[in-house]
Amino acid sequence: MGIPEKVINRLTMYHFILEDMREDEKYISSTKLANLLNIDNSQVRKDLKYIDNQGKCRVGYEVKSLKRKIEECLGFKKTKDVFIVGAGNLGSALAKYDSFKDYGLNVLAMFDKDSKKIGTMINGREVFDISKVGNLAQRLGVEMAILTVPKEYSQGVANYLAGAGIKYIWNFTPCILDVPSDVKVWNENLIGSFLQFTNNEKDEKAKDDDRNKSMYG
Amino acid sequence: MGIPEKVINRLTMYHFILEDMREDEKYISSTKLANLLNIDNSQVRKDLKYIDNQGKCRVGYEVKSLKRKIEECLGFKKTKDVFIVGAGNLGSALAKYDSFKDYGLNVLAMFDKDSKKIGTMINGREVFDISKVGNLAQRLGVEMAILTVPKEYSQGVANYLAGAGIKYIWNFTPCILDVPSDVKVWNENLIGSFLQFTNNEKDEKAKDDDRNKSMYG
Repeated sequence: MGIPEKVINRLTMYHFILEDMREDEKYISSTKLANLLNIDNSQVRKDLKYIDNQGKCRVGYEVKSLKRKIEECLGFKKTKDVFIVGAGNLGSALAKYDSFKDYGLNVLAMFDKDSKKIGTMINGREVFDISKVGNLAQRLGVEMAILTVPKEYSQGVANYLAGAGIKYIWNFTPCILDVPSDVKVWNENLIGSFLQFTNNEKDEKAKDDDRNKSMYG
Repeated sequence: MGIPEKVINRLTMYHFILEDMREDEKYISSTKLANLLNIDNSQVRKDLKYIDNQGKCRVGYEVKSLKRKIEECLGFKKTKDVFIVGAGNLGSALAKYDSFKDYGLNVLAMFDKDSKKIGTMINGREVFDISKVGNLAQRLGVEMAILTVPKEYSQGVANYLAGAGIKYIWNFTPCILDVPSDVKVWNENLIGSFLQFTNNEKDEKAKDDDRNKSMYG
């Protein structure tokens, strides 16, 4: 059975909480998880039913087993190899974001068109000329790219990636990409996030339980 | 009337599309907007009703006026001053992300505890000692901070920011912050995004129209 995206999002946040618990904390209650995320207790219990985890009366969920089940369910161990296309500030920051690998995201290589960057290493990943994407994607079996090029190049590079066999683009540029139907795009809309946060603040009544990210306070 | 978060998110994406249109394209249809985001035509029309914009029969929406209305509605011109706390890779990348200012986000200063960084400039913003947050927040009337410190410091720094008068924390760390009830947190859950994208791919049937970000393809 598929898990709705908003549940996946919350499961990762429960995992962050479990990760931060002390060794001697063996159990956690749905109330504690709910309070930390400022959501309903019943929502937590509903979410955890997706991963077939049973809380125990009075003591709550066993931390280790809950963590393991979230990991299995969301495939943290099934590592996904990705390329970062655009070795600028944001691309480099993402290459240096070491938490990714704990959750199954493995950055294999980076690409840029700037000859000054090509051949350099960023946190252990070589920066290649962008013209090599297709060849390397095929050789290494990589289908996913994180797109962090400047805004004005995003559509052109997306076209190029689609032609080079990339099937999944995680798009960090503030552009809506027009891609062939066999290519999937996930927009990491940072500007939308900021405006949701600040507009929400202006009008608390606009609160929307279906939101994907969590605003709490 | 409050606008639901997912509508705010889509409105910013419509704005990205309008921004990229050529000068001579005066009108855009809801079908074109819908196709680019792989959502329903009727969804686009519903969203645009929130900003009181009327499409014209046959020709569609007037690009300039639609753009202006989205800008007014979401407050792009009402600039919000923010601090970036954590002048590492991600913090620096966000300080260099020039699109932010077009959408009303103005990074005033950065903070770190690393003496090698303090006093340096990142894209025109000075890096101050983190102990100065409270004083500067009060003097400059800043209530919002972007949190980009390493994971292990996030809760401690969040406590400190709360004590220093920061009321809104845009959290880029993979940690769930436990903050006083007068402080609001927005989690930029990059890991959750990645897992939503990749798990979605595995099971197309899990598609969820209520998603906040857009996956299309």
